[in-house]
Amino acid sequence: MKLSQGVEWAVHCCLLLTHAEDGSAVPRTTLAGYYGLPDAYLAKHLKSLVRSGVLAATSGPRGGFRLARTPDGITVLDIVEAIEGSAPPFVCTEIRQRGACALPVERCERPCGVAQVMYDADRAWRDSLRGVTVAGLRDGLPDTLRERARTWIKDPSGPLPAFV
Amino acid sequence: MKLSQGVEWAVHCCLLLTHAEDGSAVPRTTLAGYYGLPDAYLAKHLKSLVRSGVLAATSGPRGGFRLARTPDGITVLDIVEAIEGSAPPFVCTEIRQRGACALPVERCERPCGVAQVMYDADRAWRDSLRGVTVAGLRDGLPDTLRERARTWIKDPSGPLPAFV
Repeated sequence: MKLSQGVEWAVHCCLLLTHAEDGSAVPRTTLAGYYGLPDAYLAKHLKSLVRSGVLAATSGPRGGFRLARTPDGITVLDIVEAIEGSAPPFVCTEIRQRGACALPVERCERPCGVAQVMYDADRAWRDSLRGVTVAGLRDGLPDTLRERARTWIKDPSGPLPAFV
Repeated sequence: MKLSQGVEWAVHCCLLLTHAEDGSAVPRTTLAGYYGLPDAYLAKHLKSLVRSGVLAATSGPRGGFRLARTPDGITVLDIVEAIEGSAPPFVCTEIRQRGACALPVERCERPCGVAQVMYDADRAWRDSLRGVTVAGLRDGLPDTLRERARTWIKDPSGPLPAFV
């Protein structure tokens, strides 16, 4: 069981976008440059974030990406589901209805107990990710990092403030 | 993110083995036949369960598989980890240390905040699976199913009790 690398990139890009001034769009190359990500491959994940309503995209010479909602309204789960989808990782194939001791379908109205345990765990995972917003992630960053992020986003060709 | 089908098979087989009389080994074909599973492919997963200490295998004409511990000592997590391993699904590639705004390594002693959120969710998932034992799963089955399971395991060629 593996999450795609896009999850790491997407959460970091949303976190970086919390440092954009209200309403200003950040070009994809600025996002990619901050973390040294391959620009073209990042595009795919940014598109998924737009499709899911986490980001909004604007085109044109001053175009780019911004958070579609305030940072306290975007959870890590929103981002993970934008990249990975929301299907549970366990797929019940109803093996209780197969084989020599198969249960008749009318005895299978309730989900299989095994599947239920897996679904409950999946819910615990999603609840945990739903409990953290990008605002919360941003507030956990040291001030010096936040200052560097703000500076980079405003002008990636200018000098960065030193670490303090 | 997907769990392998082997997880479903493995949990069901362990659940079936809770119905074996103390110490008696159940042949692989008996396990496979109960759920109509492909015998040869099930073998791989049973081997993983033995390797992880969930099942014990005995060879010979009366050989087969039995639970290596009492049913209340085997959690669903034990079984899932036997099949899937225990590596967390999120892999942090430390992108905070890359790119134009890379953090120097000496500022990365604590795990990245993004990775920490993902690890916390993984812990919630594993805690949930650790909270259910195969004894608990067994106790949730209707009596009529338990009777059929016991009968099949004792003699898969004999008649099964009817559903009541």
